[in-house]
Amino acid sequence: MRLNVSLEEAQEIVLGMLRPIEREAILHLPDSLGRVLSRDIKAPFNVPAFDKSPLDGYAVRAEDTKMAASDNPVILHVIEEVPAGSVPTKRVEPGSAIRIMTGAPIPEGADVVVRFEDVEEAADTIKVSQPLASGANIIPAGDDVAEGEVVASTGTRLNAPLIGMLASLGISSVPVYQRVRVAIINTGNELLDPSEKWLPGKIYNSNRYLLEARCKELGAEPVYLDSVPDEETAVAESLQGALEVADLVITTGGASVGQYDVVKNAINAVGAEILFWKIALKPGMPTAVARKDGKVIFSLSGNPAAAMITFDLLAVPALKKLSGMKEVLPPTITGILVNAFQKRSPQRRMLRAKWKKQNGSDLIELTGKQSNDVLKSLVECNILIDVPAGTPSLAVGQHVSAYVVGNLTDSLVGELKC
Amino acid sequence: MRLNVSLEEAQEIVLGMLRPIEREAILHLPDSLGRVLSRDIKAPFNVPAFDKSPLDGYAVRAEDTKMAASDNPVILHVIEEVPAGSVPTKRVEPGSAIRIMTGAPIPEGADVVVRFEDVEEAADTIKVSQPLASGANIIPAGDDVAEGEVVASTGTRLNAPLIGMLASLGISSVPVYQRVRVAIINTGNELLDPSEKWLPGKIYNSNRYLLEARCKELGAEPVYLDSVPDEETAVAESLQGALEVADLVITTGGASVGQYDVVKNAINAVGAEILFWKIALKPGMPTAVARKDGKVIFSLSGNPAAAMITFDLLAVPALKKLSGMKEVLPPTITGILVNAFQKRSPQRRMLRAKWKKQNGSDLIELTGKQSNDVLKSLVECNILIDVPAGTPSLAVGQHVSAYVVGNLTDSLVGELKC
Repeated sequence: MRLNVSLEEAQEIVLGMLRPIEREAILHLPDSLGRVLSRDIKAPFNVPAFDKSPLDGYAVRAEDTKMAASDNPVILHVIEEVPAGSVPTKRVEPGSAIRIMTGAPIPEGADVVVRFEDVEEAADTIKVSQPLASGANIIPAGDDVAEGEVVASTGTRLNAPLIGMLASLGISSVPVYQRVRVAIINTGNELLDPSEKWLPGKIYNSNRYLLEARCKELGAEPVYLDSVPDEETAVAESLQGALEVADLVITTGGASVGQYDVVKNAINAVGAEILFWKIALKPGMPTAVARKDGKVIFSLSGNPAAAMITFDLLAVPALKKLSGMKEVLPPTITGILVNAFQKRSPQRRMLRAKWKKQNGSDLIELTGKQSNDVLKSLVECNILIDVPAGTPSLAVGQHVSAYVVGNLTDSLVGELKC
Repeated sequence: MRLNVSLEEAQEIVLGMLRPIEREAILHLPDSLGRVLSRDIKAPFNVPAFDKSPLDGYAVRAEDTKMAASDNPVILHVIEEVPAGSVPTKRVEPGSAIRIMTGAPIPEGADVVVRFEDVEEAADTIKVSQPLASGANIIPAGDDVAEGEVVASTGTRLNAPLIGMLASLGISSVPVYQRVRVAIINTGNELLDPSEKWLPGKIYNSNRYLLEARCKELGAEPVYLDSVPDEETAVAESLQGALEVADLVITTGGASVGQYDVVKNAINAVGAEILFWKIALKPGMPTAVARKDGKVIFSLSGNPAAAMITFDLLAVPALKKLSGMKEVLPPTITGILVNAFQKRSPQRRMLRAKWKKQNGSDLIELTGKQSNDVLKSLVECNILIDVPAGTPSLAVGQHVSAYVVGNLTDSLVGELKC
């Protein structure tokens, strides 16, 4: 067991031992929103299905126009006029032309389209006054999507436009990974369910609801196990059950110095191996990760902000990797701090903040009090400022770097421009 | 009926006549993710519930230390030592002190906490060598959240941290607006369902699946009505049914010049009033909006990209307003174009693109072909570049402005930093 690892070491240890779960499901397309493809999807046909014209004009043979010049125009006979929405029925033979509209299939025999304004039109003929290049003004079949082309690859999460595109290809069901099952165990004698009446010395269990909802946002399936008291046997029993039903196990509470033995002993009792304890990070220092039979147990702090921050930075990448997603690590963004943070940071610290734009600049605004027990500042938080160890207080106007953990669009505001 | 309105005029017309639907539901907290609060939620108690100490120290009376000086220290008797996690049971009487830990309630009688290192500790006494200010080192009850304070206001969409915060306040159910019901009618003789075998001249109906999924992403409930042929009676019947069951009606197809009469006559036939036809926008020009009994009908182009773009810029704000959300208009962002767009834009144009970050700069990248019938470039699109009418071709490096229509985080990539 390692002690005091960095966040990056922790991520590397965890991601290094996980791979996507192998359970697949075939879903009806409308039910696949937010799910992750378990196989590459290939186009069953070309789009467009045939060579087509990008403009209104005449389909002709380039060969026929080889000798054309302004003083020696070539005259071609118009053998068919195809209205909009219809398709040609004849073949362009030497000396002939077919009038077609934008989007129409190129008639057989033709290898170039000349636009109306580039010819001289008469009753049943056209005059071409310059040689035309074979292939000009023809959109080849498969130009947008080629038959057999991978249009969506394994690991892609299905969004609305992708569902629309697959529908346009006549794909009505898709192979996806089954949802990752995440067991959540909240430990603590002091926990009350929000539906219970408050009692002195007790606190409401927020971690259950917060982490369940976060799992759902990520497309995972939370499996909730009743909260358990700070007793080794109770925690071990719950862990044992969790490992049987879930792909990933999260515990909260009982991970700090004083309480640590309970969870540690429970982890040992179920035969799991603790890989590391303590991350050099505030909040979230008392985090432990263990493994059993390829499954990972994250033992997070019981403080809601610490639990959420370590969940987002460490458990979410694991969950995404198990889900089969390709991009699993939180991206970073930099910006200018718009409010000060007075405390020094002897240890590396994550501050709850939101990203905003003003006159093209990236602004980063703390969302409120940063104590471990304060949930309010998490509500609008979509980034976590990464404050390196040894940083003095942060001043307004300072450049900072942050992990993106939420939807950046949420903190932008639209305006009616008229 | 107005003709050729601007996008902003169209948004103003539509938003001006809508207000949130009034149907409420009370949901169990875990079921409320993504829903919109229909009432303000007030804190039922103070957080913290009592005055508490932000540090390990001694709770004393400021009055007792008034005359304290380094050459005249005040000696106070330590009458109780409260271990971590426990609460004081005694009252601080004149001349006494109680030893408390971070987070402990301030004992009765005390009005200041002095930290361990600022006193001289002996067996049962402490020496204070300077006057202490009443109220120092005390976090007052309600400092984080005051009883009765609005912690989440009407119109807020519930995310995971907000659900966690409400749980921490002992709130186990919440009032939300019912989901907005959006009827989707796809018109067109040429439409096939993706489950059907392809036939010449037919195209697969992608608009149904694309718009249904988009509605779900926004927390709305799509109500799908079978696709209908380009016949006035069939469209009118479908519209009539849609107006009866839905809060908002979307039609696709039959809105362009040639086909327009079908939808227009159908709208007239159900007694709806057409407010405008045609938006000065490409793609999406052939868009009409009608109203009946306060309900809005959006008649969108049948081309998938045009349908999606006008849905995002015009129908989504309407849907969000009906949903009760506060921010309904798409925000804008500016950035540097990384690939060229060769065509001129005699009309205002929206280009499918994605936002990226590189070395702190906002980059905007076209996601592919921009034709109305190309769906591929919608898949990764999270912004729409707003190209003003009369713009020549766009060059690499040019500054452009765009509407944000997707999750900006989706186009950022994380990296393991170690």
